[in-house]
Amino acid sequence: LKNQDKVRFREEFLDLHPTDQNELFIQMSLEKRKRVYEYLTAAEFADIFKGLSLKYQKEVFSELEDMYGLEMLRELPADEITDFFSEIPDHISNYLLEKMEKKEAENIKLLLSYKEDTAGSLMTTEFVTVKPTETVSKIMEQLRREGENAETIYYLYVTNEIGTLNGVISLRELITAPLEESVETLMKEQLITVSPFADQEEVSKVIRDYDLLAVPVTTSDGKIIGIVTVDDIIDVLEEETTEDLGDFAAVKGAVDLEVNSFVATKKRLPWLVLLMFIGMLTAGLISSFEATLAEVAILALFIPLIADMGGNTGTQSLAVVVRGLALDQLDRNKIIQLLKREAGAGIMLGVICGLIVSVIALIIPQGNVLLGIIIGTSLMITILFSTISGTIIPLIVHRFNIDPALASGPFITTINDIIGLLTYFSIATVLLQYL
Amino acid sequence: LKNQDKVRFREEFLDLHPTDQNELFIQMSLEKRKRVYEYLTAAEFADIFKGLSLKYQKEVFSELEDMYGLEMLRELPADEITDFFSEIPDHISNYLLEKMEKKEAENIKLLLSYKEDTAGSLMTTEFVTVKPTETVSKIMEQLRREGENAETIYYLYVTNEIGTLNGVISLRELITAPLEESVETLMKEQLITVSPFADQEEVSKVIRDYDLLAVPVTTSDGKIIGIVTVDDIIDVLEEETTEDLGDFAAVKGAVDLEVNSFVATKKRLPWLVLLMFIGMLTAGLISSFEATLAEVAILALFIPLIADMGGNTGTQSLAVVVRGLALDQLDRNKIIQLLKREAGAGIMLGVICGLIVSVIALIIPQGNVLLGIIIGTSLMITILFSTISGTIIPLIVHRFNIDPALASGPFITTINDIIGLLTYFSIATVLLQYL
Repeated sequence: LKNQDKVRFREEFLDLHPTDQNELFIQMSLEKRKRVYEYLTAAEFADIFKGLSLKYQKEVFSELEDMYGLEMLRELPADEITDFFSEIPDHISNYLLEKMEKKEAENIKLLLSYKEDTAGSLMTTEFVTVKPTETVSKIMEQLRREGENAETIYYLYVTNEIGTLNGVISLRELITAPLEESVETLMKEQLITVSPFADQEEVSKVIRDYDLLAVPVTTSDGKIIGIVTVDDIIDVLEEETTEDLGDFAAVKGAVDLEVNSFVATKKRLPWLVLLMFIGMLTAGLISSFEATLAEVAILALFIPLIADMGGNTGTQSLAVVVRGLALDQLDRNKIIQLLKREAGAGIMLGVICGLIVSVIALIIPQGNVLLGIIIGTSLMITILFSTISGTIIPLIVHRFNIDPALASGPFITTINDIIGLLTYFSIATVLLQYL
Repeated sequence: LKNQDKVRFREEFLDLHPTDQNELFIQMSLEKRKRVYEYLTAAEFADIFKGLSLKYQKEVFSELEDMYGLEMLRELPADEITDFFSEIPDHISNYLLEKMEKKEAENIKLLLSYKEDTAGSLMTTEFVTVKPTETVSKIMEQLRREGENAETIYYLYVTNEIGTLNGVISLRELITAPLEESVETLMKEQLITVSPFADQEEVSKVIRDYDLLAVPVTTSDGKIIGIVTVDDIIDVLEEETTEDLGDFAAVKGAVDLEVNSFVATKKRLPWLVLLMFIGMLTAGLISSFEATLAEVAILALFIPLIADMGGNTGTQSLAVVVRGLALDQLDRNKIIQLLKREAGAGIMLGVICGLIVSVIALIIPQGNVLLGIIIGTSLMITILFSTISGTIIPLIVHRFNIDPALASGPFITTINDIIGLLTYFSIATVLLQYL
């Protein structure tokens, strides 16, 4: 395909959707990539650049000639440039900012100033504002001129002279309205806005709940400074899921395929060591029942079973609560209802599993009725307590804003081990006289 | 607020955003709800109804008078009606279908025929088609007339006489184009479409990757039969996350706050019982080392520690793989790279935790060098194996399309327990002669 035939390459390549251009580009060798930079204009290449991961963007940008790179940056939306700039060394981004148009550079500096994962860092400054006194036909003309540069033209934001947001009108409403109508009479005045400091999870909740394509970001005095669009929110949702799962498994930010063994080890080790020390408590716990254990060695056989079942039921309840919290579905009533339900489920699961294991303990070679009672009762209590702790602990952690990884599966499992084994050995010690 | 003052209620209530109307409505008593039905027209109430959960919809619909209900249904988009109809008993939905306009009823019957969680069941049939020969100004007029009924007017689908999709043009492109241009010259001909049988996960991947606001659903002969819009996809993403988390915790569809204790128990019990039987293997395993255990009772102390640490490291690796699979990031190269990384991390984590625990086993009251060696080595091997099994098992399960819950945290934990304890007691038995 690419035997130096510039015309044909341009024709076929530019006919593809940017996402597909992207996929092809990623697979190219350095030599082929260089030829792409030569054949495509900076504006055309910007479409490809936009879709690359930040890691690739850094690599590719270093391959571009200075002028070509700058020209390309000019074609990118402000929020893309900001993401890219926050990844590269400060002296390079400062150098590039100096070379850029002054207004654009200021926009980007503003965006760079917001903390990661806030509405401010997600938003773009390329939105369309209209004056309240304009008519529909005037605005259509305005869109014809400005439409190409904005991130979305499907919402038009109505502002006064000093930039205060007074209303919003969708392009759809505009199109179905009479041409001579003024914006003022058409616009919606109940505004749904977010603050630039709002967490990205909050922003995505607003967009999801109100089925919006974009939400305006306003300062406390009501000035519009940007918009967050739905495509950014889809990426946020993916990211949040990754984060939640990381918390759930106590990996914390190591659910990333890109990092190497050392980074992965460094991120996981603290949690493992912490868990190990908590786990040692169980060793201490068992040791205090050593007399019981020495007398009836068969008790040791069921240690892992009791421990595992506690962990499993706890993890199941945990999943329910974590999900409920993520979706913001848990108000006071729901929590009480949930606690009742989980307690109910815990009792039923405990009784059934306890009965099954009792029967098994009865029929195994060394088994007997008493062993059955001990194990069955312990398992029942363990499952009940684990279900409840798997429900309550994440709620408490959430309420007090503690690091959510402390309510992860491994932590719940370890805590439930301790509860379960304590129950198990206590019952065994009490009943031992009858064994 | 609602002392029979219809005019004032209408004014204030209708001024709210539908999502907020919704929240208010949910909190109303039956009496107040009845008054709402009386004060609002069916069309106005449709906006509220749309936003209710299916459970509420059923309840509310039964409170409506026949005619009012039917009139309201007429105002709902086809995909909303379909969702609602698939929840209510067949005889009621059939009765309602008969009362509806013929064309509308046929549309809904079509939508109802697609399996849940496919593009066909997600799509709406209310989209805008245009003829290739029309000019920009003609289409603007068409939109002015039809615009209000379509789910989105931001993409216009260009079809020939028999409904084959030939191209697509965004409203933005249309608006920035000269008025006399024909659609044919403006439209994009590289189409991104999905089949009505495509899984919803696939559909959301397409929308996400191509940053679309909607994707057309086409039959195998290229006819467009519907579109899936981005707001439906956001709901799908939430749903998929819930499902993934459910699989991860082996709860399978019980991560739902609405179900009661009995349903929750019924869904979780099979997994717990299965896990319990696997867990009994560990009891069997330990019993085969009973001689060793009887001689050195202190070994029992560290059973939970070895078991827990295996589970924890396995869960961490599992989270990485599950997420990678969900995001479709794992090709052959990435998998090899990941295996290498996890093995590397496993070795490092194993050595460090092994060393720490050795030192502790050395200094505790009954501890000695040999116990330190046994526990340290076992822990090291357990962590290494668990990291690898946490990586490989989900990959195998995924490759062979087995129920993914079989690669959940609890399963990995149980399997790693067996590996860990087997290692532990084997090493202990071999070294016992020196103890």
